[in-house]
Amino acid sequence: MLKVSIVGASGYGGGELLRLLLDHPEVEVAQVTSESNAGKFVYKVHPNLRKRTDLKFVSSSELEKCDVLFLALPHGTAMEKIDHWMELAPVIIDLSADFRLRNPEDYPKWYGHDHTHPELLGKFVYGMPELHREEIKNSNYISSGGCLSTAAILGLYPLFQAGVVDLDKPVVIEGKTGSSGAGGGVSLSSHHPERSGAMRSFKPTGHRHTAEIVQELSFHGKPKISFSATAIEAVRGILSTAHVFLNKEMDERELWRIYRKAYAGEPFMRIVKESSGVYRYPEPKILTGSNYCDVGFELDPDNGRVVVMSAIDNLMKGAAGQAVQAFNVRFGFPETTALEFPGLHPI
Amino acid sequence: MLKVSIVGASGYGGGELLRLLLDHPEVEVAQVTSESNAGKFVYKVHPNLRKRTDLKFVSSSELEKCDVLFLALPHGTAMEKIDHWMELAPVIIDLSADFRLRNPEDYPKWYGHDHTHPELLGKFVYGMPELHREEIKNSNYISSGGCLSTAAILGLYPLFQAGVVDLDKPVVIEGKTGSSGAGGGVSLSSHHPERSGAMRSFKPTGHRHTAEIVQELSFHGKPKISFSATAIEAVRGILSTAHVFLNKEMDERELWRIYRKAYAGEPFMRIVKESSGVYRYPEPKILTGSNYCDVGFELDPDNGRVVVMSAIDNLMKGAAGQAVQAFNVRFGFPETTALEFPGLHPI
Amino acid sequence: MLKVSIVGASGYGGGELLRLLLDHPEVEVAQVTSESNAGKFVYKVHPNLRKRTDLKFVSSSELEKCDVLFLALPHGTAMEKIDHWMELAPVIIDLSADFRLRNPEDYPKWYGHDHTHPELLGKFVYGMPELHREEIKNSNYISSGGCLSTAAILGLYPLFQAGVVDLDKPVVIEGKTGSSGAGGGVSLSSHHPERSGAMRSFKPTGHRHTAEIVQELSFHGKPKISFSATAIEAVRGILSTAHVFLNKEMDERELWRIYRKAYAGEPFMRIVKESSGVYRYPEPKILTGSNYCDVGFELDPDNGRVVVMSAIDNLMKGAAGQAVQAFNVRFGFPETTALEFPGLHPI
Amino acid sequence: MLKVSIVGASGYGGGELLRLLLDHPEVEVAQVTSESNAGKFVYKVHPNLRKRTDLKFVSSSELEKCDVLFLALPHGTAMEKIDHWMELAPVIIDLSADFRLRNPEDYPKWYGHDHTHPELLGKFVYGMPELHREEIKNSNYISSGGCLSTAAILGLYPLFQAGVVDLDKPVVIEGKTGSSGAGGGVSLSSHHPERSGAMRSFKPTGHRHTAEIVQELSFHGKPKISFSATAIEAVRGILSTAHVFLNKEMDERELWRIYRKAYAGEPFMRIVKESSGVYRYPEPKILTGSNYCDVGFELDPDNGRVVVMSAIDNLMKGAAGQAVQAFNVRFGFPETTALEFPGLHPI
Repeated sequence: MLKVSIVGASGYGGGELLRLLLDHPEVEVAQVTSESNAGKFVYKVHPNLRKRTDLKFVSSSELEKCDVLFLALPHGTAMEKIDHWMELAPVIIDLSADFRLRNPEDYPKWYGHDHTHPELLGKFVYGMPELHREEIKNSNYISSGGCLSTAAILGLYPLFQAGVVDLDKPVVIEGKTGSSGAGGGVSLSSHHPERSGAMRSFKPTGHRHTAEIVQELSFHGKPKISFSATAIEAVRGILSTAHVFLNKEMDERELWRIYRKAYAGEPFMRIVKESSGVYRYPEPKILTGSNYCDVGFELDPDNGRVVVMSAIDNLMKGAAGQAVQAFNVRFGFPETTALEFPGLHPI
Repeated sequence: MLKVSIVGASGYGGGELLRLLLDHPEVEVAQVTSESNAGKFVYKVHPNLRKRTDLKFVSSSELEKCDVLFLALPHGTAMEKIDHWMELAPVIIDLSADFRLRNPEDYPKWYGHDHTHPELLGKFVYGMPELHREEIKNSNYISSGGCLSTAAILGLYPLFQAGVVDLDKPVVIEGKTGSSGAGGGVSLSSHHPERSGAMRSFKPTGHRHTAEIVQELSFHGKPKISFSATAIEAVRGILSTAHVFLNKEMDERELWRIYRKAYAGEPFMRIVKESSGVYRYPEPKILTGSNYCDVGFELDPDNGRVVVMSAIDNLMKGAAGQAVQAFNVRFGFPETTALEFPGLHPI
Repeated sequence: MLKVSIVGASGYGGGELLRLLLDHPEVEVAQVTSESNAGKFVYKVHPNLRKRTDLKFVSSSELEKCDVLFLALPHGTAMEKIDHWMELAPVIIDLSADFRLRNPEDYPKWYGHDHTHPELLGKFVYGMPELHREEIKNSNYISSGGCLSTAAILGLYPLFQAGVVDLDKPVVIEGKTGSSGAGGGVSLSSHHPERSGAMRSFKPTGHRHTAEIVQELSFHGKPKISFSATAIEAVRGILSTAHVFLNKEMDERELWRIYRKAYAGEPFMRIVKESSGVYRYPEPKILTGSNYCDVGFELDPDNGRVVVMSAIDNLMKGAAGQAVQAFNVRFGFPETTALEFPGLHPI
Repeated sequence: MLKVSIVGASGYGGGELLRLLLDHPEVEVAQVTSESNAGKFVYKVHPNLRKRTDLKFVSSSELEKCDVLFLALPHGTAMEKIDHWMELAPVIIDLSADFRLRNPEDYPKWYGHDHTHPELLGKFVYGMPELHREEIKNSNYISSGGCLSTAAILGLYPLFQAGVVDLDKPVVIEGKTGSSGAGGGVSLSSHHPERSGAMRSFKPTGHRHTAEIVQELSFHGKPKISFSATAIEAVRGILSTAHVFLNKEMDERELWRIYRKAYAGEPFMRIVKESSGVYRYPEPKILTGSNYCDVGFELDPDNGRVVVMSAIDNLMKGAAGQAVQAFNVRFGFPETTALEFPGLHPI
């Protein structure tokens, strides 16, 4: 049994981590922190965990040494005390953006501040098993991908790896996301009467996740990513719709082959592409609570365009689920451990 | 391993049964039937099961003998062929209303037609473990409760059993339900533009589930149940709000004691009653996919009234989950087997 | 042209008042106040009014004399400065609860504080034209009804006025409401991920609107009102489901006659009671933006019960619309002026 | 008073037409047709019109001559009987796609069948006043634009007209739409449990509205339109997000000037582009019931990209509202007549 603690467990990502780890047969959840809820039972904040655990939140100052520390803190907060976290545990899995980018210069550009520990960026691996499984196995420092970027990267990675994308043409990605992606803090934009039924562009240009997408798709050169983000009515779920242009004529069968090759052995990747039916393309609603990433595509031969759709639950494959999957990879547990829930229909 | 088949597995209740039984360690799902989808992979109808099973639907005429047969058919259909089902399997668990009522006269009154096999009504047990656990253990014929009735009965049963309800006064129960309760068949009332955002009385008087509620709460006499049903915006979930009047003055502590006594050992019953917090009373949204029934109450001393709130996922505790729980009871498996999912927050 | 100002125009009720009065042919909107938004264009807060008005919010300290002053302030705030408001305008229409109750003792009981100007309570008329049209015509001080109470009172008033209700039996009223009823201030309970999809009892007993309902229905004695409130998924809309017990046997035709008599000439009351169809009973979603109150009922002869359903848009007939209607009555304008919008289908 | 009839008034577009025309001071609605509802009061189908009209549906075979005939029929149906409709009325306004495209070859390509009256295509004007006001004034045959195409065209037209778009680069347009766009006919994909909470690609490539968009934006050559359509949770509303690449370096001020010039005098176009605030970009939810088209944009100088967001109510500016606006233009009525409703906040 590994002794695992979670820093920042009152947020939505941290709450999902806790839910997953409580049912993990190889894990003992030792401590969960929340400054504002210290002393409270966790079910007061995460009501779904009532009768599932007697844990109470503690302040992060009360943290004891453990085997693995998950960090589920707001962006910019993990890096501040990274020395301290590293003293507490030999293995760290960070869900924030603080150690995702390899190039220190990307931080001032995309996040508006310098990185406080640029020397550590090279120690962290981008924790997406589909792209970095071997590195994750051998790393003690893992940085989970962002939610919108995870959906985009998993949708596009096979095409970029295969080198079939025209890198001179724009890659337009539209990420649509539910409200939980904005976190648990109240604000007017998340106030129910204002947020309900929204179709709301919130970052048509300049979204921070662009940096990760570029980083992870630069197999054969730097792609021209034009990323936009739209908030829509849902609590969970991301649908990424990406438009890429091919560098040669291809038919559907060839595209199929590329996706099959990339994802054949992946436990959480499903290619969803049917000729008919309501769910003929990927759709996040049936992924609620599951760790799947569903990917589909459609060829537009007139324009040499491929439209790639990819769907995830932003709090699962886009956050806590991805982190637990990486944790399983790192420790040699079956990769689906604690991640077996298939999602619901209807929902 | 028990060989289990599901009749009517393309519906919402049948689909949930299938999802649960596929993960049940003591079960092999042998066959699942659907007349209109025979020959299709189940994931074509239940897209959440993609990559989880290779099963295809078969016609019910192709059904083979098995150990347990779950019937998830429209009301009135199970009874027609009950002799046939009984030949196919020694144990039958029916999710329809066809064998819920003990009194044959209730069928013409509430369902508008005579029962075709009144002699069998006495053989079936009402499959709610909280009320009939011992009978379920010893019965081969189990009839699951209705969705709205399950929520109402589990909310009120402790008070009626304890004999503290004034049986001369009305018991007013308002059941609020999501759209999946009306099933998978298309109709104008379930057409999204018409159904979305609904607060819609659909059965203010005369709802069929009234018969079950009266039957199961008649511990000390027949209660005067005034039941109304309202459709509201949600896919899953039932919140039952019941107003009962006490036959004597009581304080909150005495009520607590009654509920604690009734539900202390129950794996799926939680008493939810906090003095503050968003989730201080039962709420179905955090139960999505879980088998819990959350029950809370509030005393209105001025009127001698207790307001009892009870929440379930209508397809789980209100249908498939209840059936699997009864199945576990019947075969001596741990009662929570395949029902461990706690629900999500946020959702 | 009457010179009209609105105090508290940045809230949801105030915003609707402004929308309605901007299109009122007999009104010039002089000033609209908001302390936190003073100096801003109103469309920054109410984006639907972009290009409809050049008004900016002012601080209430900048208010000038006018012909009519609408008060759309939080409860408890209007009464504090009532002397000041009365100096500013000869006619005051208050949307808060501060002057709704005739009995000063109701304030400490239901609102937890004494009334600061009990001597004025007798000067205000309860601004519901269906019950108090003649008094409104002759009053300079009008207090609009609460949202949940308006739906309940308009649903039940004909039965109570006709004297057919058994006053010894409980009257159970379940009010279901959307999120805008809780106002524009952010809170965890209105945070979209927490509020979305809610079926949430928030005041099962002791709701303040009970006091108004009792006050307005005491035609032949004090009714035993048991009121509960549930928040459900919607931004606007209230559905009140009331269960009353008759003091004699009656058939549907007699009930029809009572409702027809009460509401035949009312411009905003519609009796909705069809034998079939999706919208056979009242439903708030088709009332969004309209001032109608739809009322329907169903007789449960077994229990001598009548279930009365009544639906409104809480911000219209339940707040701003009711206030403008009373304003029209007071000044002799056609009662539907500025209130002609019929609602949408589908929505 | 013009005598106006509506063919196909039981659908969602026809119902909105009826609602608008009933309040039009220069119109007498003579007849409204529905084959399946002939003989029924219109409020049985459009419950928002209860107490607003005594009209009953008639069969189209009962249609009498009138001044203006609105056709709100399914695509492919209007053209079949166009000779008949032309005999009935001197002015025809068609809401279907049957006469939108100028090039007869576009019909087999995009709609899968030949046009039955290609000789009439030249007689119809594309009924979008912002692009064709003068032609509409002088035409007796008007064909309203499609819903998704209207949003896209109105968002992009100023840039294409100004000639600042790089026509060699792709124009990627993502149209997001609510469920009413799929019409009133029931189907599994619109069944509430399946449709609720959807983020569903339904036409990633090959959407028919592409033809109109190309047609209307070909000011300086044929643009390379890559259009995709996604269904999301909402009943009404379209948000079009378009990514265009400029043919020269430009700054925001120049873009502002282009949009201001194009839309300065337009009664229903609003440029929505604020530096902060929840509604800083166009958003369809506050347009529900209104005829506005809100347009905003954001420059991405790194990529020479402009992201253009445009929002409409698909049943108003995207169907019935656009048609009534064209009707007003054609007959010289003030263009906003019967289209004054500003939309609601919150909603």
